[in-house]
Amino acid sequence: MKARVTIMLKDGVLDPQGEAVRHALGGLGFAGVNGVRQGKVIELDLAATEKAGAEAEVARMCESLLANTVIEKYSVEIL
Amino acid sequence: MKARVTIMLKDGVLDPQGEAVRHALGGLGFAGVNGVRQGKVIELDLAATEKAGAEAEVARMCESLLANTVIEKYSVEIL
Repeated sequence: MKARVTIMLKDGVLDPQGEAVRHALGGLGFAGVNGVRQGKVIELDLAATEKAGAEAEVARMCESLLANTVIEKYSVEIL
Repeated sequence: MKARVTIMLKDGVLDPQGEAVRHALGGLGFAGVNGVRQGKVIELDLAATEKAGAEAEVARMCESLLANTVIEKYSVEIL
């Protein structure tokens, strides 16, 4: 079973990486980009076969390792 | 209009960052994680209002700046 975790900075947390991308896009002539936020995506290949259990397990992984929940939010998607 | 770009290393390209996450998860006692791949997600806030045009524009951004198409694949999603 595959799971995808998307981790983004919380709204209101400054994202210098996204800001740099926005600035670079403007420099390349792409107009009309009002904002950019950059985050991480982690794809996990799990041995688990039970969807609800896998989702809870991945949420525990996020809380303990994958995301910094002080400044980041995460979402788990079972594929 | 919002667009989300997901950028992952192509299959077959070594992903040391993902491998490090897999190893760390094992060390924390999470069994049954067979593989981990880590990528980037970029959320763009666009002034464009026309979906097909926005999608093509974001694909051009990926080709010219956001993704290294030699080793990375990307997918564009208009939200």
